[in-house]
Amino acid sequence: MTSIVIFGTGNVAKHLFEAFQLIEDFKVIQIYNHSRTSLQYFEDKAATTTLLEEVVEADIYLLALKDDVLQQTAKHLSYRKALMAHTSGANSIEIFKDFDRYGLFYPLQTFSKNRHLDLSNVPLCIESNNENDLDLLEKLASKISSNIYKISFQQRKALHVAAVFANNFVNYLYTEAEEIAKNNDVPFEILHPLIIETAAKITQLSPKEAQTGPAKRNDLEVITAHLKLLNTEQKEIYQLLTKSIQHLHGKEL
Amino acid sequence: MTSIVIFGTGNVAKHLFEAFQLIEDFKVIQIYNHSRTSLQYFEDKAATTTLLEEVVEADIYLLALKDDVLQQTAKHLSYRKALMAHTSGANSIEIFKDFDRYGLFYPLQTFSKNRHLDLSNVPLCIESNNENDLDLLEKLASKISSNIYKISFQQRKALHVAAVFANNFVNYLYTEAEEIAKNNDVPFEILHPLIIETAAKITQLSPKEAQTGPAKRNDLEVITAHLKLLNTEQKEIYQLLTKSIQHLHGKEL
Repeated sequence: MTSIVIFGTGNVAKHLFEAFQLIEDFKVIQIYNHSRTSLQYFEDKAATTTLLEEVVEADIYLLALKDDVLQQTAKHLSYRKALMAHTSGANSIEIFKDFDRYGLFYPLQTFSKNRHLDLSNVPLCIESNNENDLDLLEKLASKISSNIYKISFQQRKALHVAAVFANNFVNYLYTEAEEIAKNNDVPFEILHPLIIETAAKITQLSPKEAQTGPAKRNDLEVITAHLKLLNTEQKEIYQLLTKSIQHLHGKEL
Repeated sequence: MTSIVIFGTGNVAKHLFEAFQLIEDFKVIQIYNHSRTSLQYFEDKAATTTLLEEVVEADIYLLALKDDVLQQTAKHLSYRKALMAHTSGANSIEIFKDFDRYGLFYPLQTFSKNRHLDLSNVPLCIESNNENDLDLLEKLASKISSNIYKISFQQRKALHVAAVFANNFVNYLYTEAEEIAKNNDVPFEILHPLIIETAAKITQLSPKEAQTGPAKRNDLEVITAHLKLLNTEQKEIYQLLTKSIQHLHGKEL
């Protein structure tokens, strides 16, 4: 039995905890968080603590903390010979360089509080400073997902910025679409099937092949009509993305 | 039996034709297209013609044509007392003003040649210059989909530009994400589950609530690191969308 202590109580911590509850050979024995309130969710499921000095001995310490507290927490941990791992897409595993054994266990997904998510399909990126622990992380990963990727920090940095485009920025465009719809008494729900299909499509076609619309067709009449309906900020985004699409597809304005 | 002639052989024409083949009370009796080649798909399924003067009498003429040929084709049609309808999100139904009965039958979805799509969930927007034909279009729509919307041209214009944000521009961001990943030897497939979940999420949460990421958190360290990995065009998009997210979420740079 390999024992795990989880640091953090956010969405990643919760989703991983729930997934670990269902597997064999690994067991979460404690959850640490600096504040008691957010530990409530775990109270009747595992031991918890708000004090670093009360963190028990374990085989793996998994820090599922926000980027801004992750490095600080890593610094304040007393030396242990266990495997130290974090779940952050943005941080190097070298934040654990004062330890002997360390690595990464990064689920590339967007987690929400009130939305159940099947982890079996979620890509898990792993990395370690030593082969044995990479094997251990792979063993743990394989218990909860079938998509495991051993990637370097350099690759992960690129992946992280690509994810900002594919998730954060895409979600912002949904927000603008919702605003435009609502301002014109159109329920945003009309756009849901289009949004779902646009995403589903690129698992079969490359997004470059899947591109359609007035920008790609260089349909100046439609573009001009659209610009009239937008506020300053939307206009700026519309023009920049139209220019970029035309650049990619060889139609300069 | 209500007879239909379809104009056009593109993805919308094909998907509607296939859907109409499965319903009762309506029957596609002919497909018109100016070029013979693209009619091949329909040859053994319905009568076809490449000549406007050979277009037969029918109850509904459905013009599923590209925006740039739609208006021209409408002009060249000789007067008929049948219902004239088009499938374009961008055009007014007034392109048919020389006829007595006209309307809109606009499926709001992204259609691809080699991707099967279940129309039963696709929003169908309908409009007509008279109540009887609005009922007729609603009857036809209800045979193939359960999402029917009667919307005005003003609403449709807003919907169309919102769809450009939610589909065309989103797809372009996927393209950038793919390029960033590939340039760093990361398979784009790692991002598929994230892309699917980002889209699925907004059917439960509003996109404004669903927003996450360095822009929203105002995480300047991560933003600076990301910008270093991007080319000029990507940088411009990154900065503009980051600024807009911060503006929306009350964190000015």
